[in-house]
Amino acid sequence: MGRAKITIVGAGNVGATCAHWCAAAELGDIVLVDIPMTENMPKGKALDLMQSSPIVGFDSNVIGTTEYGPTAGSDVVVITAGIARKPGMSRDDLLSTNAKIVSSVAENIKATSPNAVVIVVSNPLDAMVQQVFKVLGFPAKRVCGQAGVLDTARYRTFLAMELGVSVEDVSALLMGGHGDTMVPMPSCTSVGGIPIRRLLSEEKLSAIVDRARNGGAEIVSLLKTGSAYYAPAAATAQMVEAIVKDKKRLIPCAAYCDKEYGVGGYYVGVPVILGAGGVEKIVELDLDSEEKAAFLKSVDAVKSLVATTTQLMGG
Amino acid sequence: MGRAKITIVGAGNVGATCAHWCAAAELGDIVLVDIPMTENMPKGKALDLMQSSPIVGFDSNVIGTTEYGPTAGSDVVVITAGIARKPGMSRDDLLSTNAKIVSSVAENIKATSPNAVVIVVSNPLDAMVQQVFKVLGFPAKRVCGQAGVLDTARYRTFLAMELGVSVEDVSALLMGGHGDTMVPMPSCTSVGGIPIRRLLSEEKLSAIVDRARNGGAEIVSLLKTGSAYYAPAAATAQMVEAIVKDKKRLIPCAAYCDKEYGVGGYYVGVPVILGAGGVEKIVELDLDSEEKAAFLKSVDAVKSLVATTTQLMGG
Amino acid sequence: MGRAKITIVGAGNVGATCAHWCAAAELGDIVLVDIPMTENMPKGKALDLMQSSPIVGFDSNVIGTTEYGPTAGSDVVVITAGIARKPGMSRDDLLSTNAKIVSSVAENIKATSPNAVVIVVSNPLDAMVQQVFKVLGFPAKRVCGQAGVLDTARYRTFLAMELGVSVEDVSALLMGGHGDTMVPMPSCTSVGGIPIRRLLSEEKLSAIVDRARNGGAEIVSLLKTGSAYYAPAAATAQMVEAIVKDKKRLIPCAAYCDKEYGVGGYYVGVPVILGAGGVEKIVELDLDSEEKAAFLKSVDAVKSLVATTTQLMGG
Amino acid sequence: MGRAKITIVGAGNVGATCAHWCAAAELGDIVLVDIPMTENMPKGKALDLMQSSPIVGFDSNVIGTTEYGPTAGSDVVVITAGIARKPGMSRDDLLSTNAKIVSSVAENIKATSPNAVVIVVSNPLDAMVQQVFKVLGFPAKRVCGQAGVLDTARYRTFLAMELGVSVEDVSALLMGGHGDTMVPMPSCTSVGGIPIRRLLSEEKLSAIVDRARNGGAEIVSLLKTGSAYYAPAAATAQMVEAIVKDKKRLIPCAAYCDKEYGVGGYYVGVPVILGAGGVEKIVELDLDSEEKAAFLKSVDAVKSLVATTTQLMGG
Repeated sequence: MGRAKITIVGAGNVGATCAHWCAAAELGDIVLVDIPMTENMPKGKALDLMQSSPIVGFDSNVIGTTEYGPTAGSDVVVITAGIARKPGMSRDDLLSTNAKIVSSVAENIKATSPNAVVIVVSNPLDAMVQQVFKVLGFPAKRVCGQAGVLDTARYRTFLAMELGVSVEDVSALLMGGHGDTMVPMPSCTSVGGIPIRRLLSEEKLSAIVDRARNGGAEIVSLLKTGSAYYAPAAATAQMVEAIVKDKKRLIPCAAYCDKEYGVGGYYVGVPVILGAGGVEKIVELDLDSEEKAAFLKSVDAVKSLVATTTQLMGG
Repeated sequence: MGRAKITIVGAGNVGATCAHWCAAAELGDIVLVDIPMTENMPKGKALDLMQSSPIVGFDSNVIGTTEYGPTAGSDVVVITAGIARKPGMSRDDLLSTNAKIVSSVAENIKATSPNAVVIVVSNPLDAMVQQVFKVLGFPAKRVCGQAGVLDTARYRTFLAMELGVSVEDVSALLMGGHGDTMVPMPSCTSVGGIPIRRLLSEEKLSAIVDRARNGGAEIVSLLKTGSAYYAPAAATAQMVEAIVKDKKRLIPCAAYCDKEYGVGGYYVGVPVILGAGGVEKIVELDLDSEEKAAFLKSVDAVKSLVATTTQLMGG
Repeated sequence: MGRAKITIVGAGNVGATCAHWCAAAELGDIVLVDIPMTENMPKGKALDLMQSSPIVGFDSNVIGTTEYGPTAGSDVVVITAGIARKPGMSRDDLLSTNAKIVSSVAENIKATSPNAVVIVVSNPLDAMVQQVFKVLGFPAKRVCGQAGVLDTARYRTFLAMELGVSVEDVSALLMGGHGDTMVPMPSCTSVGGIPIRRLLSEEKLSAIVDRARNGGAEIVSLLKTGSAYYAPAAATAQMVEAIVKDKKRLIPCAAYCDKEYGVGGYYVGVPVILGAGGVEKIVELDLDSEEKAAFLKSVDAVKSLVATTTQLMGG
Repeated sequence: MGRAKITIVGAGNVGATCAHWCAAAELGDIVLVDIPMTENMPKGKALDLMQSSPIVGFDSNVIGTTEYGPTAGSDVVVITAGIARKPGMSRDDLLSTNAKIVSSVAENIKATSPNAVVIVVSNPLDAMVQQVFKVLGFPAKRVCGQAGVLDTARYRTFLAMELGVSVEDVSALLMGGHGDTMVPMPSCTSVGGIPIRRLLSEEKLSAIVDRARNGGAEIVSLLKTGSAYYAPAAATAQMVEAIVKDKKRLIPCAAYCDKEYGVGGYYVGVPVILGAGGVEKIVELDLDSEEKAAFLKSVDAVKSLVATTTQLMGG
């Protein structure tokens, strides 16, 4: 009972829009924190958001800050911090820069919100969530990453468009890493309960899977400057809601799999039950051979990314 | 644009609770109409509901009446009228009484709201919707019956309880007639997109299907006096919303099937796309042999019910 | 964080509809409890309500019971228990019967949910909340009564109807006892912020105040059998929400006034700030002479009612 | 019935966030249109927003475009187009540039959505809405400007903060021009119906009025780059909702006042009833002498702004 305390690290488009979704749904009080260099920007966005509250009718304190003091004792922490890849920047440079950023964030969270459930959104997701987990030293169930809800939402959107039905009726699951190495699961896709293969040809389905896989890049190429934030933020807010309201959502997220799926200690996208305790259960499915192959490939990509990160971090 | 006009016939628990769900969701202005014998009762319920509006924050005019004048020009009409089976009453007596009631309602609707989409909720559903269709003479797509959304909701509730997951993640489809002859479709049941058979044993699933099938009777036996109304009303309100907001929901409802599924001109529970035009499309699935057998049995039960009704109504 | 636990005592129309509003707003898990004589009725209503959850999309466990065990550790308890006045029943008989009922409920709550905030809805409200307070022995701020939100809602509804404006824009405050002795506060009534006297003649305003005062009786006379439940339940659910979400609503409720307004230790309708701690503050206004006279009259009526109750309860 | 069609001109932060609020509230299908130079940007934002729909559960088609063809037949049009004042730019340059921009938009709307209700948000608001009105040639009630809802929301937010109460309980009205020349109306400010002066000292109230007046500048100074968009967009979405749902909201907006308040044919902030027909009524209040003086000063500022605009536009 009472209001949950939600900290969102990073007051850029994804972080601030996540605050927007969380506040509008009255999920709790929100602290939007960014680096000192941003000065009063987080404060400005927080105040602007607060000023929408009498209109929309939500009671959430939203504050912006560049310090971790006000975030202390948070129930949920969302980490969106990190830079976007700039032209001429190598993949390793990006990896190294963001790993340092999220490590620093994790140190701060560890010190100030030791009981929080932490959701990592920073990219490259699979490596960043592993890094945050390492620094935090929290039980694995209290650290997870957002990727699957977003990828699945894109896939569901395209399916609803193709079939001309309400988005509310499309259910789906995607596994594995974020984006490129995403594992399509047509066997876990249904509309109004009806398996997608009874409604759509393999060809069309395959085209939609591909479009979902490249969903992030498609937005980037349309926007020219910047990347997606409405759907990534909504996906993250849904995870926050599942935790704050202890909803026991069965949704895909990047969870720490040890024996599960034989992964051996890495964060990878799997179906989980998400509730007040964080990742309360990893749902293990028998994968068919095609799914298994794609999943293993995805896990390999994650392992390689993590290895590179560890190496770059000198550790 | 502007407010839809929704007429709900029958101000008993199902009708009034349907008004409650519709008003709270601000689906439109509502006319709650009942027979003259109820005197000011519909007016009382409507006024009580209106008085909750400043608290909840919805703008819907809700009026109660015993005449059809105020219902004129409705966009959607819900028919919940009819009596419940009383001790010592034969099944045929019930059928005959309710057929007369809904016929009289249909005559009134035909005269006053010739362009409405009509949703029948009265029991026995499959016969009543056919009777209403016959009297109205409206295009088949503008007349449908609520049964599948309710049966499916019960089934989904039991599945969520069994698996300990959010009800939001359980999708399912049931076909055929209401209750007893309901056709279970385990192949069209999933949780977070995951086919139910990958999560639950055949035995447990079967027990849950049985419980759903008897869902109405279970509530009756618990309540002692009266029958279910919260879930039936919510199911109906969902159909109203699909029409009013043109949501293109893919949900099961009693729809007029002629060539579809080879039914030959009867109302039977099938997946449809429900939008502003009513039943905009009947979704035809290839049924497996077990499903097909159950569906045919269900259709036979409907045909027999309709034949009896026709005979009782004198032709 | 996590779900609040809400117990609603009395599974009649007001109690069950309060469960409906609370569940639909996902305010927490709900226990609907009634006396053993009702057997499985609370279970039936709870199950019916649960079965609406997949349709509406809320995750609330709603259970029905006739024992207090399952209510243990509730955060909020709503007491709607009590009988309605029957023909031929004296006012004192009603008072005595309901005082015994709520006392018994309070004993049970005291034993099982010692930290709850308790909202009394049973009638006659002002006497019942005092009785519950006496039996519970809780701090006064954790015991309050619902009356003012309902009376105000009726008043706001009639104002919105008269002016042809959204109910969302009408704000008002009523003080004093429930119904008959309600204290109209035209000076605390506004539409879109505009004082009502700048929009409506004193005559029309007075007629509306009278109608609000008799709002409960008007519904009773329309319904013939039974009394209002939609708006009373919505009013109560709003108070539950204020507590569960710690919203700090400034609304009228029956609160224990000692020095406040010079009442001297009685429950009477006053503006309060309602949050997680219950009645966190009683807002004291300077009343004008007319308001003060009406308020004192109302307080006298409450005192007399409480004295009679005490006497009937044997001291 | 069916979905409203909403066009939002300008896909910058205010326009896109307005689309966000409208889509999340399922107010209708949305067309986000911007100038050809923005290329695929509107398409990118629209697609990103669409991809949040399966998560949030709304059915709204959101499309982005740089042409007016897809906007044809809109029910509501929101105009957010215009540039922000750049360093070194004179006030007249800004006026002239934005007047040309909104005139061009208005020409397009006139040709494609002749029956729309048009809401202008572009700055300087009072001059821009007059200019749009002139070009459109629509009846005055179908053209209005958003300013008062935002200014009032800021004022309400600060009041709720000061008093420690829910934003839901603060009602207020501000009149006159946007920002600087805003007319404070302490007599039309209440909390839970209670006049603000019974709760707050004149000094504190005055400080809050001043802060609200400079609310936009405060956000600009905090953000450093850019200006407010959450609250402006929410304010605009509330006006869209009032129209689409015919809510008859009594809210302040820039409306064409001829005889009303003796303004003589200018757009100025006044309380109105906003419904499906647009500004269905201007609510005329008797202003006290202080209010009247401030209002006249505000009207003079508007007149002067409009005169300058007319001159800059060559007549």
